[in-house]
Amino acid sequence: MAGLGIEDEAFIRGKVPMTKQEIRVLTMVKARISPTDVVWDVGAGTGSMSVEAALLANHGQVYAIERNSEGVSLIEKNKEKFGVRNLTVVEGEAPDALKGLPDCNAVIIGGSGSHLSDIIDEISARLKKGGRVVINCITIQTLASALDYLRTHEGDFSYEAIQVQINRLQAVGAYDMAKAINPIYIVTGEKK
Amino acid sequence: MAGLGIEDEAFIRGKVPMTKQEIRVLTMVKARISPTDVVWDVGAGTGSMSVEAALLANHGQVYAIERNSEGVSLIEKNKEKFGVRNLTVVEGEAPDALKGLPDCNAVIIGGSGSHLSDIIDEISARLKKGGRVVINCITIQTLASALDYLRTHEGDFSYEAIQVQINRLQAVGAYDMAKAINPIYIVTGEKK
Amino acid sequence: MAGLGIEDEAFIRGKVPMTKQEIRVLTMVKARISPTDVVWDVGAGTGSMSVEAALLANHGQVYAIERNSEGVSLIEKNKEKFGVRNLTVVEGEAPDALKGLPDCNAVIIGGSGSHLSDIIDEISARLKKGGRVVINCITIQTLASALDYLRTHEGDFSYEAIQVQINRLQAVGAYDMAKAINPIYIVTGEKK
Amino acid sequence: MAGLGIEDEAFIRGKVPMTKQEIRVLTMVKARISPTDVVWDVGAGTGSMSVEAALLANHGQVYAIERNSEGVSLIEKNKEKFGVRNLTVVEGEAPDALKGLPDCNAVIIGGSGSHLSDIIDEISARLKKGGRVVINCITIQTLASALDYLRTHEGDFSYEAIQVQINRLQAVGAYDMAKAINPIYIVTGEKK
Repeated sequence: MAGLGIEDEAFIRGKVPMTKQEIRVLTMVKARISPTDVVWDVGAGTGSMSVEAALLANHGQVYAIERNSEGVSLIEKNKEKFGVRNLTVVEGEAPDALKGLPDCNAVIIGGSGSHLSDIIDEISARLKKGGRVVINCITIQTLASALDYLRTHEGDFSYEAIQVQINRLQAVGAYDMAKAINPIYIVTGEKK
Repeated sequence: MAGLGIEDEAFIRGKVPMTKQEIRVLTMVKARISPTDVVWDVGAGTGSMSVEAALLANHGQVYAIERNSEGVSLIEKNKEKFGVRNLTVVEGEAPDALKGLPDCNAVIIGGSGSHLSDIIDEISARLKKGGRVVINCITIQTLASALDYLRTHEGDFSYEAIQVQINRLQAVGAYDMAKAINPIYIVTGEKK
Repeated sequence: MAGLGIEDEAFIRGKVPMTKQEIRVLTMVKARISPTDVVWDVGAGTGSMSVEAALLANHGQVYAIERNSEGVSLIEKNKEKFGVRNLTVVEGEAPDALKGLPDCNAVIIGGSGSHLSDIIDEISARLKKGGRVVINCITIQTLASALDYLRTHEGDFSYEAIQVQINRLQAVGAYDMAKAINPIYIVTGEKK
Repeated sequence: MAGLGIEDEAFIRGKVPMTKQEIRVLTMVKARISPTDVVWDVGAGTGSMSVEAALLANHGQVYAIERNSEGVSLIEKNKEKFGVRNLTVVEGEAPDALKGLPDCNAVIIGGSGSHLSDIIDEISARLKKGGRVVINCITIQTLASALDYLRTHEGDFSYEAIQVQINRLQAVGAYDMAKAINPIYIVTGEKK
């Protein structure tokens, strides 16, 4: 539990958008990561989810796949900052960049470009039975694609999905007013 | 129905914050304004709700009460723009500014400063049986005060309340992603 | 304005699910119905939106299309109850049932079965320039289909979309607690 | 991390309402429980949060305070089921039932009856510097009381608060439709 729920401010961020703490935590929980797991973090961005995953899979190994070089550099910096040795940064684009990795017990997809279906095909072939792929969807099209894939591959996956909306109360003088955070869908597929 | 659901962009706004179309419409509906009604709009801001109310109460009269002079000027401009003659702008602060007005059939409270309880006291004395006061609450403290007032005056009012959260889908290239709008509570008291 | 914002309890309902007041009102506003409009209500259900539309288009004509005979009967009863003469109930399934109707100025789609694309094709051919089609989507698949259609026909339509989530406060003794209502997406296409 | 994110179905429940997994997890994260912490769970209900806390504070001690005897029995059963030895069930009502407990590093308040202010007074005197009290508020009145307390004791606590709304997608034939879960406010005070 060393890491779960790191504050957003603790990560080195640059201009790369970062998943908010609450969403990061719920994503980790849905992924059901165990201490010895091999985890893929596809579209790792700043590496905030990779770091959390590496703290959970503290006797396992996490692979952070990121195509953007600014992102790769941020992940390296956050790896350093949080002292997680079991995190390997892979510069490249999924699904190609996944081919050389060891098979996995859990996958997080934070960003998929337009290759979601091909990426899940690769995951489907490489994720162990009972393992989970968790897809964070900020667009309706990604959500619809994820659901469509999991429905048409119901022999391979069971799934659940939630939408999460968080409003943060902000103190303004004597008042607290809600500041809305953009909602996100979290889709979880479990390998049969 | 001439006016209900005016687009936000149609109003002259300045820097005064303005209620969004969807909230404006729901507020009007909860207020149940009839063509011959006298309506008070307390804390009228830009006058966007006053204009909609004036179009609904087209054989009645709407009083827009606003303490801020920039607001007063905006209301006058919006009154002009939408050609609503049955709208009177009252510069001043509620509840004092309400004393000289004719009794009313409906009240909208968009802004109450810290005088909510005194304002509803005045409304309670002047609102006709079956008339409604609709309070838009953007802070928890205003919401709690409104509920507290209506609960402790249950001989005078029945009430209902909703929270409304709107996410607007934004097209970004081939994708639609949700942009959250800050939620609001709409509290409606009906005079017994 | 006679009708906008009829209370849910005022409609005769049976077991057919009915759009909630707040959603009904926002749908009407997005449809921008004028007094002389011809309006199609596709998948009219209980007819609650048809009745509201008929009160808005009080010098126009509303056609309620419904394939389910229990629904047809409910719409007739609600037409009777609210005394709206300018409402015609059409038993049948869209898009076929739309072919005999006069061209329209506004369309509401509350239910589309699995024919959404064919239905909007027909609407696209028959909706007047500047007219609006408003699609209430309670499933991700309908939402994705609606967005996909409007995006691939951008020469014919501009569009906007919102998600609406309402929580109703329920009084339980000395407390008010939120009761969530299932969220809905409202997609609006405007004919170019 | 053995426990964080236990599925709702895994707990023995009876008729006592139980916090949903997503809310339970976010509550734990906000409480920032460390392995050697002493944790109080006030109004423990089924003990689902006590069990998660006991798995996080695996070298510490969790006290589950519950006034309802059915609840006490359920907590004992869940303690047994999850094999958490560092969990002590205390039958009684806060704040009185808190007096005999050792000082604490973290507090969770799931239920407070009408004694919230007295309970936080006791917590304020007994919570270690930097420790956190996390209050789950399902009513506006509890939320307003919590905020009011933390604001008027700003020398003792800093605070943050979020509202969390989760919609669960349900598969219905070829469609996924959102089923709303009642929203909750999570208020977190940190002892200065």
